[in-house]
Amino acid sequence: MVDTNKTITVVSAHSADFVWRAGGAIALYHDLGYRVRVLCLSYGERGESARLWKDGKTLEEIKQSRRAEAQHAAEILGAEVRFFDAGDYPLEVTKDLQDALVQEFREYRPELILTHSLTDPYNADHPRTTELVMECRILAQAHGYPSDLPVIGAPPVYLFEPHQPEQCNFQVDVLLDITPVFERKRQAMECMEAQEHLWEYYTDVAKRRGVQAGRNAGSSIKYGEAYQRIYPYVGKVFA
Amino acid sequence: MVDTNKTITVVSAHSADFVWRAGGAIALYHDLGYRVRVLCLSYGERGESARLWKDGKTLEEIKQSRRAEAQHAAEILGAEVRFFDAGDYPLEVTKDLQDALVQEFREYRPELILTHSLTDPYNADHPRTTELVMECRILAQAHGYPSDLPVIGAPPVYLFEPHQPEQCNFQVDVLLDITPVFERKRQAMECMEAQEHLWEYYTDVAKRRGVQAGRNAGSSIKYGEAYQRIYPYVGKVFA
Amino acid sequence: MVDTNKTITVVSAHSADFVWRAGGAIALYHDLGYRVRVLCLSYGERGESARLWKDGKTLEEIKQSRRAEAQHAAEILGAEVRFFDAGDYPLEVTKDLQDALVQEFREYRPELILTHSLTDPYNADHPRTTELVMECRILAQAHGYPSDLPVIGAPPVYLFEPHQPEQCNFQVDVLLDITPVFERKRQAMECMEAQEHLWEYYTDVAKRRGVQAGRNAGSSIKYGEAYQRIYPYVGKVFA
Amino acid sequence: MVDTNKTITVVSAHSADFVWRAGGAIALYHDLGYRVRVLCLSYGERGESARLWKDGKTLEEIKQSRRAEAQHAAEILGAEVRFFDAGDYPLEVTKDLQDALVQEFREYRPELILTHSLTDPYNADHPRTTELVMECRILAQAHGYPSDLPVIGAPPVYLFEPHQPEQCNFQVDVLLDITPVFERKRQAMECMEAQEHLWEYYTDVAKRRGVQAGRNAGSSIKYGEAYQRIYPYVGKVFA
Amino acid sequence: MVDTNKTITVVSAHSADFVWRAGGAIALYHDLGYRVRVLCLSYGERGESARLWKDGKTLEEIKQSRRAEAQHAAEILGAEVRFFDAGDYPLEVTKDLQDALVQEFREYRPELILTHSLTDPYNADHPRTTELVMECRILAQAHGYPSDLPVIGAPPVYLFEPHQPEQCNFQVDVLLDITPVFERKRQAMECMEAQEHLWEYYTDVAKRRGVQAGRNAGSSIKYGEAYQRIYPYVGKVFA
Amino acid sequence: MVDTNKTITVVSAHSADFVWRAGGAIALYHDLGYRVRVLCLSYGERGESARLWKDGKTLEEIKQSRRAEAQHAAEILGAEVRFFDAGDYPLEVTKDLQDALVQEFREYRPELILTHSLTDPYNADHPRTTELVMECRILAQAHGYPSDLPVIGAPPVYLFEPHQPEQCNFQVDVLLDITPVFERKRQAMECMEAQEHLWEYYTDVAKRRGVQAGRNAGSSIKYGEAYQRIYPYVGKVFA
Repeated sequence: MVDTNKTITVVSAHSADFVWRAGGAIALYHDLGYRVRVLCLSYGERGESARLWKDGKTLEEIKQSRRAEAQHAAEILGAEVRFFDAGDYPLEVTKDLQDALVQEFREYRPELILTHSLTDPYNADHPRTTELVMECRILAQAHGYPSDLPVIGAPPVYLFEPHQPEQCNFQVDVLLDITPVFERKRQAMECMEAQEHLWEYYTDVAKRRGVQAGRNAGSSIKYGEAYQRIYPYVGKVFA
Repeated sequence: MVDTNKTITVVSAHSADFVWRAGGAIALYHDLGYRVRVLCLSYGERGESARLWKDGKTLEEIKQSRRAEAQHAAEILGAEVRFFDAGDYPLEVTKDLQDALVQEFREYRPELILTHSLTDPYNADHPRTTELVMECRILAQAHGYPSDLPVIGAPPVYLFEPHQPEQCNFQVDVLLDITPVFERKRQAMECMEAQEHLWEYYTDVAKRRGVQAGRNAGSSIKYGEAYQRIYPYVGKVFA
Repeated sequence: MVDTNKTITVVSAHSADFVWRAGGAIALYHDLGYRVRVLCLSYGERGESARLWKDGKTLEEIKQSRRAEAQHAAEILGAEVRFFDAGDYPLEVTKDLQDALVQEFREYRPELILTHSLTDPYNADHPRTTELVMECRILAQAHGYPSDLPVIGAPPVYLFEPHQPEQCNFQVDVLLDITPVFERKRQAMECMEAQEHLWEYYTDVAKRRGVQAGRNAGSSIKYGEAYQRIYPYVGKVFA
Repeated sequence: MVDTNKTITVVSAHSADFVWRAGGAIALYHDLGYRVRVLCLSYGERGESARLWKDGKTLEEIKQSRRAEAQHAAEILGAEVRFFDAGDYPLEVTKDLQDALVQEFREYRPELILTHSLTDPYNADHPRTTELVMECRILAQAHGYPSDLPVIGAPPVYLFEPHQPEQCNFQVDVLLDITPVFERKRQAMECMEAQEHLWEYYTDVAKRRGVQAGRNAGSSIKYGEAYQRIYPYVGKVFA
Repeated sequence: MVDTNKTITVVSAHSADFVWRAGGAIALYHDLGYRVRVLCLSYGERGESARLWKDGKTLEEIKQSRRAEAQHAAEILGAEVRFFDAGDYPLEVTKDLQDALVQEFREYRPELILTHSLTDPYNADHPRTTELVMECRILAQAHGYPSDLPVIGAPPVYLFEPHQPEQCNFQVDVLLDITPVFERKRQAMECMEAQEHLWEYYTDVAKRRGVQAGRNAGSSIKYGEAYQRIYPYVGKVFA
Repeated sequence: MVDTNKTITVVSAHSADFVWRAGGAIALYHDLGYRVRVLCLSYGERGESARLWKDGKTLEEIKQSRRAEAQHAAEILGAEVRFFDAGDYPLEVTKDLQDALVQEFREYRPELILTHSLTDPYNADHPRTTELVMECRILAQAHGYPSDLPVIGAPPVYLFEPHQPEQCNFQVDVLLDITPVFERKRQAMECMEAQEHLWEYYTDVAKRRGVQAGRNAGSSIKYGEAYQRIYPYVGKVFA
């Protein structure tokens, strides 16, 4: 735990997305001493809570349930969560939501930002979130944007693996070795009681990405998470 | 100088390519203590020695002159050079050349490999070199390939920036900060006496890539070199 | 006429689009016993009625004329039409229009949906329609979306061939053999009196697609219609 | 078992590829009554037999072992195999090999052809096989190509899912539901004793493709295989 | 000065964009006798005036300063400027702005239109401008769009080179030889006092594009500007 | 007829390709006073002479027949033809063929070169020709390539529209207005007696490209030919 004053930020369209797609990265960065901010724009109350609706829950009950699950999962992974309750299916991008995100970026000054893919023919909220995040990051860099907080630098942006990557033009630029933290990712996934069918599914995805990571690294890796980079990597050595 | 027993390998279709396109990377890795192997498949004697032909030199004189310049440039950058004299315009890929490259990879076991872009409508030797390098790397990984040397792991491959990047579908995945070694890159470029018009050109390219690197890093960078990655980056943190 | 209780839905930005672009598919599915719903979001009154404006018609007259033509063409092809009168050039996507489309999909539960291409530098209403259709299909699948009607399954989406396919990144995934119904497509096209120049043009397109279909099938085909698939085909045999 | 006089042909660069990548399709088509021809261009003796080399086997022993395994797997799936023994890593494309493939296509007149992806940065033999197959299919269509056998029609070509699909620009056009035959695919995989680590891996791939197939079909599917189509589908209904 | 009654139109998201990106084209067309209209949608007051904000200027002062600089630069290049003051970071696209642009195109009937790239992950205002321009050009062609002015023809659209072209999928279709007017472009750039760091940068870009232009033309060219074409070139000879 | 000492060169894989694909361009440039060189690498004797083989002609008779037709068509269009008789299906690229093409380019110094598309899943000879032409053009530019003739400049390369453009990733960069010469193109097509089914087909293609050209030009055009550019256009005005 060395970098205790640094932050990474994960922007999740719906309250469970961050667990399936970035649970490993969150736990890894937590273990490195980072503060991890998870921003849930909605609870996924309409679009990703089929079982709760079938069980006859009300909208408010569903929101509460999804919020509690996300909170619990974040705790296991070592993250803090902020809920924006912006509504889902469709997620509505307002000026207020945009400004809240800009001020959030200025306040916490993330070292890096994780969010959804650029396109997704199965989910309109995901790319809408990505577009919003990319614009708010730019606004947070602008000296003339109205704010009491100083401008940010140029945090890199990494995109989550979507459910059907080939249909989303997803490019695998980074394979993260999440083996040391996979147990916690699995526990966090199990907080999502209404989506039990996804526990095994995302365990398999992690295994497959692990095998691929191993083949690209030339050594054995058990569990992986895939990401796409938006901006070029800058460094003094190759990466 | 910490990693003295590690090697990186740079495969150059013609004897000067490695200077313009990877001079910064070579000097950086030399300074980190790496052994840097430059493999020049040809001298560029037919296709990239216009001034020498205009001066009435013979083929043999041109090869000697190009070889001496490349040798000198490599010394400045801190690399050792191996010349294959395989001919250029067109570079002819033979089984012998292929085998020599496989055995070279097995003997020196590079941590990473640098070479040309995947396509280039201005230069057929460049993508032919890339295709050869990618196949030889695969063969060097195969247990059944005839050799007295053990198989290699999975060294990442990075592609040089071509002369006209947009025409070559070049993707910028990595911007290397070569500011600390740029003076030596400039000196190495000046060894190429027959191509004086390129000294200033590639200095400008380095400046432009420096400005872009700075903008992606959020801090000022003077000189850069751009590369495309072929395989995903694998790591425990993002890069 | 076997599948009498099944529906296909064709979403047309302007009232004539469905005729030029999907007239053959509509007639084929009608003949198979399907109910075919054509949804015309606008009449194309501003953007695709040049001759009527030149003739000095009023906006209301033009809408009436375009509506009558579309109605007539749909009858020939065997489809029923619903007009949304949402305005064109630009087509304005409102929450009401979105909700109407979601409820329409829930009510009629189409087996498949046909609409415009993903991009079109000659026509902004077309890709806007496609984006709307894709989002409404997703919303119609969501258990939490407010509606008295049950969620739908996952109807495949096929995209019409645009006027200049290469400029629209149009991919030909399916070539439909419309030979048995072409005469009716031609008659339906001839309902569009204000666009006579397009009758011959789209007859030629059908011939060219027929020749290509024949070459891909290994047998002679006279008239074809081209479509792009959005989602993978799922089946027990290849297709 | 209705179509007993029809054939499908699967072209496999190395002797095990057809099992991991197309085992489900082979068993499905066998069960439909098709004759399934598997063409193994090499045994994968050098590039895909690491464990046998480590065990100290000779080249000839490895070929025998790989041949026996492939033969056994094919029997389980219901296919007949032809071995070309053309050598691997690198697979060498000769005129004789090309002619043998053309005559094979003319003799068996496949309804469809399955083979590898168009590019693969991890394996040069795979795209080389694809290129060969595509050219031989064209030559088999040409009236002037020297042969005693009649020309073929235009069999569609489907491409296997490669090991790292995103790195190979693999597009998922078809998801085959292989649930009814998956047990046999698993048994066939288990014939490949030297590659035990892949049994579980390709079972997971089949599960993931099954989930995706279900999501695209709107109904639950347990096991799937993904393919890319080269030529447009031609038909009287959408597919 | 032959074509004195013809116009070209340059649409600039922020008040300085037209200088860095199209200064050469503007001066060339002015010298050919064209009327050049520069449309500045905003002053770039929030997003591209970092130094002025650091100097403690007010919003109004910054707008005035940016306006004066743009006016001065336009005079040097030979263009007239219209300011829309639509706000930046984010640029807000309203119906009024859209209509103003349509009427502008109808009034001045440009022979060609220059604007920004289709995507830009560093700047959301730029592609938003491009999208707006492309739609307004389409609306200006529509007979039914409400206006007192006649419809326009089909002016070609050319896109400026963005700051980081490879990140924006920028394709170089045209390299303009701006050598005869480069001195004036440099003077116009020097009007942008708050962005002195860009003077040298864009001089280097012009040199690099000049070298590339020379290599594509087979003759020496000193300064160039790169553009992407949206629609095909139509002519009686190749271009 | 002004440019009488200038040449354009059209490289045709098979002896009839230049007629269907570039007949309009050839006639236009002939009328401008250019010398037009058509280089037919093969007669298309095996792959594109189905009817002649069905009629029981011998290989030699077919070659003679195809040669005579091509000669006749070229005369109508105003071109001279050189036949290389390199064989087709597959076209074999030898060092001799390569050298002959380099010397041809050096001797005639074309202002521009027309040839086939970059890929074609229906025809392997076409992209092989394009690759050959692009490399020979590069070799003809190299001072060190063995030849008694001086190096050439940088003639632009334009690619023919293939038979199924979308399957070949064909981009339409130039639409040539061939209305003034279409009658002669039609006559030249009618020389190809064995391919009568293509006369009407390519007349329809010309009409469709004419309509598209008109829409991009804003004025009516009857017949067009589409081409893709390989290298950027360089000029003092936009094109």
